[in-house]
Amino acid sequence: MSTQIQANGHTYQLPARPTVIVCIDGCEQEYINLAVQAGVTPFFASLAKRGTVLTGDCVVPSFTNPNNLSIVTGVPPSVHGICGNFFYDTEAGAEVLMNDARYLRAPTVLAAAAQAGAKVAVVTAKDKLRALLGHGLQGICFSAEKADQANLAENGIDDVLRKVGMPLPSVYSADLSEFVFAAGVALLETERPDLMYLSTTDYIQHKHAPGTAGANAFYAMMDSYLQRLDALGAVIGVTADHGMNAKTDSLGKANILFLQQVLDERFGTDTTRVLLPITDPYVAHHGALGSYATVYLPAGTDQRAVHEAIAALPGIELVLDKRAASERFELPPDRIGDLVVVSERLTVLGTTPARHDLSGLDAPLRSHGGLSEQKVPLLFNRKVSVPAGQRLRNFDILRLALNHAD
Amino acid sequence: MSTQIQANGHTYQLPARPTVIVCIDGCEQEYINLAVQAGVTPFFASLAKRGTVLTGDCVVPSFTNPNNLSIVTGVPPSVHGICGNFFYDTEAGAEVLMNDARYLRAPTVLAAAAQAGAKVAVVTAKDKLRALLGHGLQGICFSAEKADQANLAENGIDDVLRKVGMPLPSVYSADLSEFVFAAGVALLETERPDLMYLSTTDYIQHKHAPGTAGANAFYAMMDSYLQRLDALGAVIGVTADHGMNAKTDSLGKANILFLQQVLDERFGTDTTRVLLPITDPYVAHHGALGSYATVYLPAGTDQRAVHEAIAALPGIELVLDKRAASERFELPPDRIGDLVVVSERLTVLGTTPARHDLSGLDAPLRSHGGLSEQKVPLLFNRKVSVPAGQRLRNFDILRLALNHAD
Repeated sequence: MSTQIQANGHTYQLPARPTVIVCIDGCEQEYINLAVQAGVTPFFASLAKRGTVLTGDCVVPSFTNPNNLSIVTGVPPSVHGICGNFFYDTEAGAEVLMNDARYLRAPTVLAAAAQAGAKVAVVTAKDKLRALLGHGLQGICFSAEKADQANLAENGIDDVLRKVGMPLPSVYSADLSEFVFAAGVALLETERPDLMYLSTTDYIQHKHAPGTAGANAFYAMMDSYLQRLDALGAVIGVTADHGMNAKTDSLGKANILFLQQVLDERFGTDTTRVLLPITDPYVAHHGALGSYATVYLPAGTDQRAVHEAIAALPGIELVLDKRAASERFELPPDRIGDLVVVSERLTVLGTTPARHDLSGLDAPLRSHGGLSEQKVPLLFNRKVSVPAGQRLRNFDILRLALNHAD
Repeated sequence: MSTQIQANGHTYQLPARPTVIVCIDGCEQEYINLAVQAGVTPFFASLAKRGTVLTGDCVVPSFTNPNNLSIVTGVPPSVHGICGNFFYDTEAGAEVLMNDARYLRAPTVLAAAAQAGAKVAVVTAKDKLRALLGHGLQGICFSAEKADQANLAENGIDDVLRKVGMPLPSVYSADLSEFVFAAGVALLETERPDLMYLSTTDYIQHKHAPGTAGANAFYAMMDSYLQRLDALGAVIGVTADHGMNAKTDSLGKANILFLQQVLDERFGTDTTRVLLPITDPYVAHHGALGSYATVYLPAGTDQRAVHEAIAALPGIELVLDKRAASERFELPPDRIGDLVVVSERLTVLGTTPARHDLSGLDAPLRSHGGLSEQKVPLLFNRKVSVPAGQRLRNFDILRLALNHAD
């Protein structure tokens, strides 16, 4: 195969050694730091000396899909088009789910590598990401959630449960992420892909704070599989789609700003439309509450008045109009509203109380979406040389692992 | 005694029941939340139903002295004058320690209450706060640190170690704060002060993250004493001087921006003076590293150039000139520099590497000083009525406890 590929304006060296990129969903850096302090993650602990420890900025909105797609395309949402789970189609007058690959505007580096002859494998926790990550990919691509349904025609692999040696996990479990790692190790042992992308789910991080028993056990589990991938000779790069923060008061009550309710009271019902792009079919662990919202305003609305009213609310960190938000956060202007709203670290944004089912929240709310969850780890089990003074992003990870690792 | 007093423009009802105000140093709200989740703090857990749970903003710089003095005077540093441990006296050409009561520009509510006939007691962990908190106070005022030296003439009490029943604690220990609570209980049992102020030290919070064993044990200890104060019939209000955040990368390496070094390289040595008001005689647990600095510029310096250079540095959240900082943070303009610099949640500000002794840091750096540590608890064991829409501050706590509790 050729040794270099181009994707979305960047050049990538195809790997001479198996290279595994891991996206730990919701990996606030403190999870690793405190697991290392607790002594339960020897692989992570070893990286400070033998590997490379960096911090990068993820994409805002600090949500799963925009960041996973940025990581596999190597470019921000302004290029690849996926800036959340939903956008509002003003022509159709409907909120549209963006989980389908037809919304993806850029090829993935994974597909380009496979096209050039590399053996590529992708394993995700939830199935919602599989179609997007596997778009155009000739290779292996399946989710832990639907591992039992994986077949050669659609997923490039079959009989996954037997090959991985685990039963089908529940979609709300730590097992769902463990399955991803177990599959990664099994694939590296048998298929030995040149390039593998493993993406977990943040079910644990939404419920367990860094350093607590539940979190440390989860990171110890991941560490044990990373040790095995390491022992199998893989170049490993670990990053996150976003961080994670508590969103409550001292007694665990969620700090929720119901933005649609506030705007309805101030400007009239049906005047503004607050869209929460974190909304997805799996909301039991966060109740569709995150620190990012976008607001659509019909023609004739006094945008400045709405902008200023939102900016003055307690718990708001930042309000930007469409143009400023598109530039600062590198978002596709046609898929965001007229205003982008980011709440402070301890506050989440809701629409109206009736539209959020919080019955599944059995632990104090932890969530993401804002600037407060933008710092994520960039870790490697090799020495990686980084140009000084450059702002690092999580979606630099393929370039760093493929082009800059020893 | 008269039933009302005036202090610094506010009216306070003198307490009919013993009232205890507790300032838990460095109490990021998540410490309480996770200790409650762990089931080790029944007093705190009970407050959601039987008491009042609020969140307030502390003073920025989110340091100990400016906030303790704000709490006991009921007003911000623009009125009471204490905006850090140090300021730069431009006339004298020297950095001046502000721990002496002659720098205090406002009487305390505690002193005013004693003046009106109330029995008042103050117990602090470290002695550095004692002189400021006890200024003008006819009553009991001593520190755990120097409890062995307390005498009737200076402290309004003697034989403290015997009365409290604990040996003199080390200044770097959880015991130092436990001594404060043990003294509070002993005083309430024997002297029964009308108004008591207990102020701990953040030694534990600088070393232990919320929800970890060391933190939970500390909060369980405080909870057991709060239960006893509660059982003795006290109205209890709990707040914090500031929050606390990790200031490291994934492997626990501190994110330090050495601002003096950067400015020396850019603008020349001895052109700018970076002052870190967190600096104090007890720095082993934080190395004098916090998320706030103030910069003094000699006449003729291009202030805009320095301002913009700092604002562009990675890790900086905010740069304000003296006037803007004085207004936004309610600081005394004559005791801050020409610029005020706040760093992001995960970053601290240093001067030059040689001027920070990090040898005492035996755990990954956790610190405070910035906007990211501004949210603090306001908890009461009584129902407290709060006017809607009002921004709450930690220094509202005496008014809330004395004027608004059931």
